[in-house]
Amino acid sequence: MADKGNPPAAPLARTLLQQCLQATLQVKPADDESEAEYVQIERGMVIYICFFRGATDDILPKMVSTLLNIRLCESSSGKMVSVLDLPGSILIVPQATLGGKAKSRGMQYHNNIGKEDGLRLYSTFVSLCEEIAAVNGDKVMVKHGTYGNRQVLKLDTNGPYTHLMDF
Amino acid sequence: MADKGNPPAAPLARTLLQQCLQATLQVKPADDESEAEYVQIERGMVIYICFFRGATDDILPKMVSTLLNIRLCESSSGKMVSVLDLPGSILIVPQATLGGKAKSRGMQYHNNIGKEDGLRLYSTFVSLCEEIAAVNGDKVMVKHGTYGNRQVLKLDTNGPYTHLMDF
Repeated sequence: MADKGNPPAAPLARTLLQQCLQATLQVKPADDESEAEYVQIERGMVIYICFFRGATDDILPKMVSTLLNIRLCESSSGKMVSVLDLPGSILIVPQATLGGKAKSRGMQYHNNIGKEDGLRLYSTFVSLCEEIAAVNGDKVMVKHGTYGNRQVLKLDTNGPYTHLMDF
Repeated sequence: MADKGNPPAAPLARTLLQQCLQATLQVKPADDESEAEYVQIERGMVIYICFFRGATDDILPKMVSTLLNIRLCESSSGKMVSVLDLPGSILIVPQATLGGKAKSRGMQYHNNIGKEDGLRLYSTFVSLCEEIAAVNGDKVMVKHGTYGNRQVLKLDTNGPYTHLMDF
């Protein structure tokens, strides 16, 4: 695995990782015909993700491998292990705002990838996470938000232990 | 206000901003003699903060001014306003893990400021936020975590709208 100690000056993707005891995310808002729909995970890791202009599918396998294998989860014995080894669950949250840059008192998102490409990369990212999790049997659940929606999120932590990882 | 569109290559401080409907943070864990203590805010902004080596008090006034005035909060009319103008409350969470860099499958924190200097900067940052909030009367509450503790956090959002700001 590559040393991520020196992320590229102009990253192609930005991820933010938070540990949770439970996380609940709306995947469909309420409308006239139905109530809002949610997904939920128990103990595990929330991955907020944003792609930048120029990102391609090529970066995804290494991203997924890195994120799912990095030791950021505290096991019952206090040892830091990966979310796969915990085993914990994974909640993937599309979060285009992570690509924001402040300009005066507002935020701009000029470096963010276009919506169509972003959705494709996001969907592939989710699929790759699901594939790797499936190898671990049914112990690691992967849930994810709806790309383009407002990400109505509830998070309960024992310390979010927030980490940023650019790719 | 300076253009923060081009944050320095080697930042002196990293902040992460999330919007909340309610946030609860443990400020003292339970012990033999007493129960755990918590602070709570309702609608407003959570500021996770980490200082790097070389950071000094000089950067704090501009940081605080930028963070409290940037328009990241959605008003009832849907317009984006600052947390001061919302008016919302502010929860400051020390989060040294934001300074982490991946090395192989682990995280390293070599660029983080030392604990003593970090505590001093954190305390001053909190005081400056409280001073600015006080100018707005009693509408903007400032709550904060205990530096060095595990930040046991519960977050309820209508979309965290996560933004990263380096200084």
